[in-house]
Amino acid sequence: MNSFGRLFRVSIFGESHGEAVGIIIDGCPAGLPLHSNDFSDDLSRRKAGNKGTTPRKEDDKPEIISGLFDGHTTGAPLIILFRNSNVHSADYDAIKNTPRPGHADFVLHQKFGGYNDYRGGGHSSGRLTVALTAAGVVAKKLLPFATIQATLIEAGGDKDIDRAIANAIIKQDSIGGIVQCVVSGFPTGIGSPFFDSVESYIAHLIFAIPAIKGIAFGSGFASASMTGSEHNDAILNETGKTKTNHAGGINGGITNGNDLTFKVAVKPTSSTPKQQHTWNRTTNSIEAFQAKGRHDLCIALRVPVVVEAVTAIALTDLLLVSQRIDLIKPQ
Amino acid sequence: MNSFGRLFRVSIFGESHGEAVGIIIDGCPAGLPLHSNDFSDDLSRRKAGNKGTTPRKEDDKPEIISGLFDGHTTGAPLIILFRNSNVHSADYDAIKNTPRPGHADFVLHQKFGGYNDYRGGGHSSGRLTVALTAAGVVAKKLLPFATIQATLIEAGGDKDIDRAIANAIIKQDSIGGIVQCVVSGFPTGIGSPFFDSVESYIAHLIFAIPAIKGIAFGSGFASASMTGSEHNDAILNETGKTKTNHAGGINGGITNGNDLTFKVAVKPTSSTPKQQHTWNRTTNSIEAFQAKGRHDLCIALRVPVVVEAVTAIALTDLLLVSQRIDLIKPQ
Amino acid sequence: MNSFGRLFRVSIFGESHGEAVGIIIDGCPAGLPLHSNDFSDDLSRRKAGNKGTTPRKEDDKPEIISGLFDGHTTGAPLIILFRNSNVHSADYDAIKNTPRPGHADFVLHQKFGGYNDYRGGGHSSGRLTVALTAAGVVAKKLLPFATIQATLIEAGGDKDIDRAIANAIIKQDSIGGIVQCVVSGFPTGIGSPFFDSVESYIAHLIFAIPAIKGIAFGSGFASASMTGSEHNDAILNETGKTKTNHAGGINGGITNGNDLTFKVAVKPTSSTPKQQHTWNRTTNSIEAFQAKGRHDLCIALRVPVVVEAVTAIALTDLLLVSQRIDLIKPQ
Amino acid sequence: MNSFGRLFRVSIFGESHGEAVGIIIDGCPAGLPLHSNDFSDDLSRRKAGNKGTTPRKEDDKPEIISGLFDGHTTGAPLIILFRNSNVHSADYDAIKNTPRPGHADFVLHQKFGGYNDYRGGGHSSGRLTVALTAAGVVAKKLLPFATIQATLIEAGGDKDIDRAIANAIIKQDSIGGIVQCVVSGFPTGIGSPFFDSVESYIAHLIFAIPAIKGIAFGSGFASASMTGSEHNDAILNETGKTKTNHAGGINGGITNGNDLTFKVAVKPTSSTPKQQHTWNRTTNSIEAFQAKGRHDLCIALRVPVVVEAVTAIALTDLLLVSQRIDLIKPQ
Repeated sequence: MNSFGRLFRVSIFGESHGEAVGIIIDGCPAGLPLHSNDFSDDLSRRKAGNKGTTPRKEDDKPEIISGLFDGHTTGAPLIILFRNSNVHSADYDAIKNTPRPGHADFVLHQKFGGYNDYRGGGHSSGRLTVALTAAGVVAKKLLPFATIQATLIEAGGDKDIDRAIANAIIKQDSIGGIVQCVVSGFPTGIGSPFFDSVESYIAHLIFAIPAIKGIAFGSGFASASMTGSEHNDAILNETGKTKTNHAGGINGGITNGNDLTFKVAVKPTSSTPKQQHTWNRTTNSIEAFQAKGRHDLCIALRVPVVVEAVTAIALTDLLLVSQRIDLIKPQ
Repeated sequence: MNSFGRLFRVSIFGESHGEAVGIIIDGCPAGLPLHSNDFSDDLSRRKAGNKGTTPRKEDDKPEIISGLFDGHTTGAPLIILFRNSNVHSADYDAIKNTPRPGHADFVLHQKFGGYNDYRGGGHSSGRLTVALTAAGVVAKKLLPFATIQATLIEAGGDKDIDRAIANAIIKQDSIGGIVQCVVSGFPTGIGSPFFDSVESYIAHLIFAIPAIKGIAFGSGFASASMTGSEHNDAILNETGKTKTNHAGGINGGITNGNDLTFKVAVKPTSSTPKQQHTWNRTTNSIEAFQAKGRHDLCIALRVPVVVEAVTAIALTDLLLVSQRIDLIKPQ
Repeated sequence: MNSFGRLFRVSIFGESHGEAVGIIIDGCPAGLPLHSNDFSDDLSRRKAGNKGTTPRKEDDKPEIISGLFDGHTTGAPLIILFRNSNVHSADYDAIKNTPRPGHADFVLHQKFGGYNDYRGGGHSSGRLTVALTAAGVVAKKLLPFATIQATLIEAGGDKDIDRAIANAIIKQDSIGGIVQCVVSGFPTGIGSPFFDSVESYIAHLIFAIPAIKGIAFGSGFASASMTGSEHNDAILNETGKTKTNHAGGINGGITNGNDLTFKVAVKPTSSTPKQQHTWNRTTNSIEAFQAKGRHDLCIALRVPVVVEAVTAIALTDLLLVSQRIDLIKPQ
Repeated sequence: MNSFGRLFRVSIFGESHGEAVGIIIDGCPAGLPLHSNDFSDDLSRRKAGNKGTTPRKEDDKPEIISGLFDGHTTGAPLIILFRNSNVHSADYDAIKNTPRPGHADFVLHQKFGGYNDYRGGGHSSGRLTVALTAAGVVAKKLLPFATIQATLIEAGGDKDIDRAIANAIIKQDSIGGIVQCVVSGFPTGIGSPFFDSVESYIAHLIFAIPAIKGIAFGSGFASASMTGSEHNDAILNETGKTKTNHAGGINGGITNGNDLTFKVAVKPTSSTPKQQHTWNRTTNSIEAFQAKGRHDLCIALRVPVVVEAVTAIALTDLLLVSQRIDLIKPQ
């Protein structure tokens, strides 16, 4: 299924080489001022065109075809559409029979009995993160009291990102990276123990982003080597502010008023320029494989804004489920 | 909210020092042979009593009070109850006003306006993982074709677990650990891109376990330092078997027929014997704090079976959502 | 599946002749004063013992085994259990092979491959309405500003209910009835067009009550014979009060501040004392059938309090989904 | 919220006088042949243009903008869009301040703080039933073994429909009607007791159709006047076929293999040509009111195909939840 959320619910649709991709947002409160310009900054952060990103450039112009009237949300479902224009489907003919290594081509064929739209990954394409990004813009506008900031802090194992990209270009091999996200100003008491923990919610949506292979909150995997007396964050006063923040702002699945912090591992783009091998469905033999199509050398460059988007979506839904509409009610 | 799953749905309830804890399983197919003995192995793996675990020992005897008839599941909701017997609530009087560092005491008080059952963490207690473990036993029985194996591979930063526990006892400070989980024999084509990705589902449930701070699939955070040509798993034949398994058995959110693998970071137990400091609600001042109650020095010792349980729950639900009841239909 | 609701979510479990029946309420706000005495009035309204009702008498003593602390709800799941004591299971041996006409015996056997607990209808029994009634008590306490009143207005086609029952006893044949429900004091603006219409929500839950075969809001089926100028309710002032109430308090799926009104059709109890015929699974032949067990001659007598209960559940959930916790926040 | 269904999930969007209306279908199995021509028959049955229906004529041309590839569904979300072309929004200026009697104008203004798109009812408009009808076409194609037939059997209290319409035209007052629906060939054992009863599911979706005020299964309200021995349907053989069908094909919430039958009450169109009165928000006084815009005199004429559509949607989802994909798997 392709939707998530209880009261702020997103439903994603579309294919990389189909007519359009987009998203429905159901449950956006009425009265939020919204204009297509609001999307520009985040959409351009996600856009291709820099070194290390794909040469496929889409207009990424959001069409809001329902749920907006006189410049404000109406309370009815918002649907935001992005037309696909810059489509080179012929590049993908080969993958009908030669599933690309690292990609979902093989499993999609198995799962859907060969009926999936295989062009450019079809519905599974990273192209659909433009829709997540757009939904994130709306969610962020509902959380004016919070700042959500994601940054690429490492690429290809190197904290100097420019150098990492330069090396990848020289080596002509794709690389991954690590994205850090910090949320400040979010209220205390949101989330629940067990299935609605803030970690569960955020992780669920983070792993909805293609190419993510890990997430860790606060001190994360390093906490496994710490002692309790080191790791515990001492509460300093009645606001719940703590001396350290090893917990990443979450105790027992519930926000504690300190910064929410987590890191995300992005694997290297599967479509590397390097020659590889794969199995051919027609000949049932292994053969050399060279990625066609237009691809990112370091998809991690474009991930931070998507991480912010899904974080904002998760937090907005949790806030509404926690009945804190008073915080987000448009004035 | 305290439930998870679409077609195999678990709902958890109870408090650490209340009358009972337990779980409802809705959607378990009819005809599965089930006996209270089936729970013994996994419940005893979770049990306290070894070095490094709490001296609180509960009988952990499962009462199946509905959904079972003549030794088989009926298709109606299964409810599995564990009575609390070994309760020392007086130990917890202090935490009404002195929220324990690293625990959810502070945020629960904020969230529920002081009405939460604070004794032993109440509904948030790790005690409730006995209920998750029980649900996992049922789920595992529905997946006879798969093996799910979780192991503590590191504690307190040391791969020699016995030594790690011995050191923690000497230092009288709690420690964390890393749990690895491997699932073999699970079919190809389960899961979806985006919100129903296998990673999303498993991570959602893993973070429902108290004390978990990170999860990473396949090569996980290490993949961020790899190149695409290193990371991509070459498909070898028509079964989808790959040469390597950096992807951890998942492409595009969908199982690819290779082993599912992931690692989980467990933080050190918040209730360390070491003296700490915290804020006192009554006096609004910082004071020295000494954990009372009975606690685990290394909760990570008891986590593997819970990791297996939630993994089995996630995979069973995904299998049913994927309409593969043919695989699990009791014969 | 056996649960309903988004933010005030009920999950029903148990069997007529099993150990217990009960319900989980997830999402009940913290701080609601609750005592087992609160259930007495509604449970005794549902109870058997009057003319026309079954001689099976259960204690119907609610055990609240979680979610309650110091006399208030804690915000954690409430679980309310009713032990079955007065069980005569031997009466039901025959129905293994002779499905009772009008009952679900045949379809349950088909659906669950014979694994269903057939005794007294098992999980499908009207016995489980005791659990719905209990959940209704909690929901009503959350709606102190509203009154929900259901009444049996007709039985066996007769508006004189005593006479109807007397006649049924003479004829020794079960009868049905019509229940009317009126909700006053409920706020304007709750519900949505389409799938979350107030009618959709209430009807969904009303048809969860065994033996209900119809529901009609406001003028209901009579409205089909009216003209628009007769049927339209003229708005009188800024409160939305209308001159008439043909709409039953709902426009476009949303409450309009006038009384919510609807009628419900209850079919005659399937277990009539009259001799009938049915098919025998073993002999594959038609044979005479006489209902055994203890049954109601007019189950409709016991339905009104259950109608109120599910109405209260539906309205509480809709109120929370509409983010009106301000209305129900325990003071 | 604007979606319904667990495994075959529809999400409706759009406004009467906005850019478009449409629906997402998530969970449609891959491999179903689908062409825009498939929609023609049902869309033209719903269309305006006959006596008694609105003069607003829309093209109702379905655009399938995702989820379809090479003439088959792909397993990804289907989105079906209908552009609005024939829009006379100026007709609706008045209703900003003069809520139409019988319509949702008043409650929508209250609910959404005046931000709702009030033109032609906005998102609440009957115009959106074109989207339900389209989703119904897809659902029907997934149920080739069943026939779903809804018919208008009475209008304005008259079983001679032509005469009823003629009279309404003479009187210049809108009328309601009764629609009967019969489903044949649907398998036994689908649905559940309580919240997933077939009646609950169908009723939920039927009341999602604007203007519906009642639903009754089998003998419906008449069953309230019957005795048990009259009402019970005697089982005749191992297929579950019954001698009579007072139950409407459902026992204990589960299909019994006989025809599913139910009737639906449609109220008269709120926008009657007759002069009425309503309250004016600006002047806070009662004033004469004359419906503007283009409206149906008997909306019930256009309801049957929508009843069929939501019935097909309900049954498809229940079938998938019951894990009977084997029945609908496209060959």
